[in-house]
Amino acid sequence: MILTVTLNTALDITYRTPALVPHTTHRVSEVVERPGGKGVNVARVLAALGHEAVVTGFAGGRTGDVLRELLSGSDRPAARSGRPRAARPVDALLPIAGATRRTVAVVDASTGDTTQLNEPGPVVSAAEWTGFLSHYDRLLRTGAEAVALCGSLPPGLHVGAYAELIRRARAAGVPALLDTSGEPLRRGVAARPDLVKPNADELARLTGSREPVHATHDARRRGAHAVVASLGPDGIIAITPDGAWRAAPPGPARGNPTGAGDSAVAGLLSGLVERLPWPARLSRAVALSAATVLAPAAGEFDARVYEELLPRVTVTEVPRRAGG
Amino acid sequence: MILTVTLNTALDITYRTPALVPHTTHRVSEVVERPGGKGVNVARVLAALGHEAVVTGFAGGRTGDVLRELLSGSDRPAARSGRPRAARPVDALLPIAGATRRTVAVVDASTGDTTQLNEPGPVVSAAEWTGFLSHYDRLLRTGAEAVALCGSLPPGLHVGAYAELIRRARAAGVPALLDTSGEPLRRGVAARPDLVKPNADELARLTGSREPVHATHDARRRGAHAVVASLGPDGIIAITPDGAWRAAPPGPARGNPTGAGDSAVAGLLSGLVERLPWPARLSRAVALSAATVLAPAAGEFDARVYEELLPRVTVTEVPRRAGG
Repeated sequence: MILTVTLNTALDITYRTPALVPHTTHRVSEVVERPGGKGVNVARVLAALGHEAVVTGFAGGRTGDVLRELLSGSDRPAARSGRPRAARPVDALLPIAGATRRTVAVVDASTGDTTQLNEPGPVVSAAEWTGFLSHYDRLLRTGAEAVALCGSLPPGLHVGAYAELIRRARAAGVPALLDTSGEPLRRGVAARPDLVKPNADELARLTGSREPVHATHDARRRGAHAVVASLGPDGIIAITPDGAWRAAPPGPARGNPTGAGDSAVAGLLSGLVERLPWPARLSRAVALSAATVLAPAAGEFDARVYEELLPRVTVTEVPRRAGG
Repeated sequence: MILTVTLNTALDITYRTPALVPHTTHRVSEVVERPGGKGVNVARVLAALGHEAVVTGFAGGRTGDVLRELLSGSDRPAARSGRPRAARPVDALLPIAGATRRTVAVVDASTGDTTQLNEPGPVVSAAEWTGFLSHYDRLLRTGAEAVALCGSLPPGLHVGAYAELIRRARAAGVPALLDTSGEPLRRGVAARPDLVKPNADELARLTGSREPVHATHDARRRGAHAVVASLGPDGIIAITPDGAWRAAPPGPARGNPTGAGDSAVAGLLSGLVERLPWPARLSRAVALSAATVLAPAAGEFDARVYEELLPRVTVTEVPRRAGG
């Protein structure tokens, strides 16, 4: 199984309104709730790809209850259509006293433009963090083939939290992927994860450089065994011990980029545990990412579009130290 | 006791951000949750004034659970300060299958400007409405001295719902105040409530006139025994069987008008059950309303400011049929 860690899970709420106008009152025409947080999104894509995905991290309060119900599908009665139920991630979230945060995405119905409001998340106590470390160690040792550490840290957790989780994964012999930002990314990279997946902004903040190949090399020198930088519509750059590549989709994908990075992480992780060569992993990451941008619902991916895009992703080798 | 009915209760969520910028991502610095819906706000002010206030209407789902916890104060441990616990409204909400709606108020920290997002609310079934009518009849007959019918109707309820509640209040001999808008107000007024409290916009939509005295007379001719129109900073106009008055605060109140109308309703209701003469009721409504605008937290009222403003409200008689 593949383990994904989301320390700051979220109940993602999407509101549809004609258009958001500051300092006025809006009647929301449509409300959609989804279990959220980057690792939860990664696990959902992994499950859709046929992998056993286990979700851990924290959940608490009524919002945490709703998140877990949505995750398990217990919020709706079993389908009577006879169609097989979609594969779902396994819930191994740890209960905490604080309430899971909400995120509110306000979508303008005419344009699809989205305004995002993110709550900070519950304060995690020292005792809850200690409890989590034992829980995490147990999960690592019950068949985890890889672990993804994803998203922001909730209040109360020290910036070295991901570094600690990376060291414990190494001790358990489980490859670790890190997808976060800011100081937790900086500390995490120094703990030598197997893979980090920054986007262009995160990479620039980490390295001070906006030149992607140079910055990706720099990120790797800071401790990560491999770095895959996602560059939005330009695809990805990977600098690994086995070589360096660029992978790009066949054309620009117009749509909602929410969750595209999480789908890329799922592509990389599934390719890792399937022991695919790097170019195949990168193709999968780019095709899943583009299929997510093109899907009508934010954060979903369109399986048919994915299958269609996969053979059309171009992967080219990056000359050693080009631009670096 | 005074009964307040809120058919579309809400969990009111307030987010504080530096400034709301459409189509960008915001980290919310502060999250506050309060039990909401107009009748709930009215009951909170009545309880603070020393009246026994009973809240009814619908509550459901996890959001309804949170609302009821906040209403009862069971969300926080008992204070150890030895100070008497603030009087609270009594919860007589009826559980329903659907989830209580949320409202989200996004407050720009620098200016206090507020952007409001209101969910539509749960669909109320015919059986739930029938169940509510029996519940309401019982509450009317267990010592209700007055009833306030407040706010929007949730999806599924017919526009004549308030008219029905007004007829039942009359059958039970309980004076009814109506504070709603649009078609439910039009139908409600025709059912001859004892008092309606439209604001300037609601009055204009009901009567087609923006001239306040004329429009207030017109609203009364449509069936209400008395009409008190709230005109924001200009105070209120009352047309009643006993006379007609204007009441105005001593000066303009700068602040957040959220809940000012609900405080005015509480002032009118408390004055009614205390059998105060109309001018005293109107002074109370205006002083409570201004003390709500001036309070630092939206929807609260400042008791000291209220006491100070009360003797300074000016009440003047409106000449019979002036402007009408």
